[in-house]
Amino acid sequence: MGQTIGVKEIEYLAIGAAVLGTGGGGDPYIGKLMAQKAIEECGPVTLLAPDEVPDDALVVPTAMMGAPTVFFEKIPNGDEALHSLRRLEEYLGKKAFAVMPMECGGLNSTIPFVVAARSGLPLVDADGMGRAFPELQMETFNVYGVSGTPMVITDERGNWCLVNTVDNHLLEYIARGITIRMGGVGHIAEYPMTGKEMKETSIHYTTTLAINIGKAIVHARERLENPLEGMGKALAESNYGEPLVLFEGKIIDVDRRTVEGFTRGTVTLEGLGTDAGSHFKVEFQNENLIAYRNDEVVATVPDLITFLDLETYKPITTEGLRYGYRTICIGIPTPPIMRTTEALEIWGPKYFGYDLPFIPVEELAKNVKRGRS
Amino acid sequence: MGQTIGVKEIEYLAIGAAVLGTGGGGDPYIGKLMAQKAIEECGPVTLLAPDEVPDDALVVPTAMMGAPTVFFEKIPNGDEALHSLRRLEEYLGKKAFAVMPMECGGLNSTIPFVVAARSGLPLVDADGMGRAFPELQMETFNVYGVSGTPMVITDERGNWCLVNTVDNHLLEYIARGITIRMGGVGHIAEYPMTGKEMKETSIHYTTTLAINIGKAIVHARERLENPLEGMGKALAESNYGEPLVLFEGKIIDVDRRTVEGFTRGTVTLEGLGTDAGSHFKVEFQNENLIAYRNDEVVATVPDLITFLDLETYKPITTEGLRYGYRTICIGIPTPPIMRTTEALEIWGPKYFGYDLPFIPVEELAKNVKRGRS
Repeated sequence: MGQTIGVKEIEYLAIGAAVLGTGGGGDPYIGKLMAQKAIEECGPVTLLAPDEVPDDALVVPTAMMGAPTVFFEKIPNGDEALHSLRRLEEYLGKKAFAVMPMECGGLNSTIPFVVAARSGLPLVDADGMGRAFPELQMETFNVYGVSGTPMVITDERGNWCLVNTVDNHLLEYIARGITIRMGGVGHIAEYPMTGKEMKETSIHYTTTLAINIGKAIVHARERLENPLEGMGKALAESNYGEPLVLFEGKIIDVDRRTVEGFTRGTVTLEGLGTDAGSHFKVEFQNENLIAYRNDEVVATVPDLITFLDLETYKPITTEGLRYGYRTICIGIPTPPIMRTTEALEIWGPKYFGYDLPFIPVEELAKNVKRGRS
Repeated sequence: MGQTIGVKEIEYLAIGAAVLGTGGGGDPYIGKLMAQKAIEECGPVTLLAPDEVPDDALVVPTAMMGAPTVFFEKIPNGDEALHSLRRLEEYLGKKAFAVMPMECGGLNSTIPFVVAARSGLPLVDADGMGRAFPELQMETFNVYGVSGTPMVITDERGNWCLVNTVDNHLLEYIARGITIRMGGVGHIAEYPMTGKEMKETSIHYTTTLAINIGKAIVHARERLENPLEGMGKALAESNYGEPLVLFEGKIIDVDRRTVEGFTRGTVTLEGLGTDAGSHFKVEFQNENLIAYRNDEVVATVPDLITFLDLETYKPITTEGLRYGYRTICIGIPTPPIMRTTEALEIWGPKYFGYDLPFIPVEELAKNVKRGRS
């Protein structure tokens, strides 16, 4: 049976998942503390490879839903997502065999470990986004035909709803309405599925990848390595492509607002080092969506666009972006399952309102001349 | 066992309930057709006196929730509220002994008959508002301690949510959010309660009262009676006070908009007959809330303020108010259970944002000199 995840691995996971989270998926700090506390109290969590799950077993993704901005002020009590899982099990009349993350992100990669530790259930090393996305239908589970409902959403006061919808877009729309009325944050158990469905529709080994990326960043300094090298090695062992440096610069403006349950905005940078004289802009909706270098598109959703602190190489969420930060922005090519025509209909640039085609970041990178423009 | 309600009684009920609905509770026409069709297909409905319900039986109020304006355009398929009832029964693990209305109103007095006819359940002759109100916590059930949840809300497409909240104000807030995301209208089963709770917290015999008022209006002409006389007789046999004429006039302006799931606005009239030279204004939020005669308050929520067509004496909903209509506006004193301090905290003028005390309409009427001002 799979590897064991303890307090140390959660430390790495929180960092690596925030890299894959492409600015979204919540604040890694709170999620990390919550998962570590749960593991300290209840013991380590077994991480299962997707193939270790029986085809007919019930697998349930759990997550935080809402605006990360609000999450900072409404810290959960830690039992909300487990409560959602339990109510969902009761409704289905079946016990979950394992839980899993819905997405990669500082918070939504760690929160499922709280549920796993407190319930004693194993966690599957896979998820439904391969990054973070702002909406519930943006999951490979939906792209490849799994129903998102029945789902349960619980808030920190104990209010909860069981939601059933005729399609997964309506699930997003109605559950988002509930989240807003819960004060901007809810905790969900959704897309209950069989082991077979999970194997066929999820992005595999993303927890392991996140842990390896986090480890590379944390230990780069003591190994006198460039953290991007270690990150590159971790990615080379995965379905993702190698990390590409999109820009090195200082943040000169952040325009961020909370709108209809989402954190939306734009961050603007001016170049440093080889990028001095150039400028750079990223538009985000919870997650970074489109990167422009000197007004030319250099990366588009669903490829990963992540800001790292220029000093520590730790990832910065869209929440954490501040005037004056010196950062390096990287692009990471996403796995083929996230770039199919069906998948791009659900989360390509057009869905987010951009009149842009998806072009793989590795293609776009070929046209970018970094250095003084 | 109680009386039997057929197609004819529904005809009266729709009219009388719209009088008690004080402008709200939905359009009587659609509700009437739905209830009559259900009775034609499934047979008449047994109306139970509150005392006929065993103390430990499960009683479930059902209703339409949302903006009547929207209801005109999203006509239900007729099974939504029954679906909500069935899902609620499944969740509770108990079958309902009877259904009941949540409020009086053209639609919400008749819709529970659709559920009763199609399920074969009897309907209790009582409700939780004694009129129509715009919010779910505005029920005597809430005033006197019954939990509104678990509740179920279903839309015409088949989307549905089971809602559990820690109090009934949050039920209103969260369920309203769901209703808005369902497109403005949902169909609910709420405040599941015991027979004992129903007897102690409901307003009794409101269906009978509504039928009697409707009958008085319909048959007044053939009896060469003033419809207000027959209405007065029906009310004299109830816990309500006698009807008072507040104004007779022509509508000269209607300002109506749909805001956050509610129909809000103001209607203005100029006097006719003994009221010639005076003006009159009513402010509403789904229901008529405050009536002003020559800028003086003459009736306040929760007392009933209802517009009747000056020709037919049929009630006009806030939806139906139109420029040029000649109407008579009446006030009806509500029963004591609706005027207690606890009750007025939930639905007095202050709750709706008016800096006005509740003064019984029969008190206010003493100060009104009708006739040329």
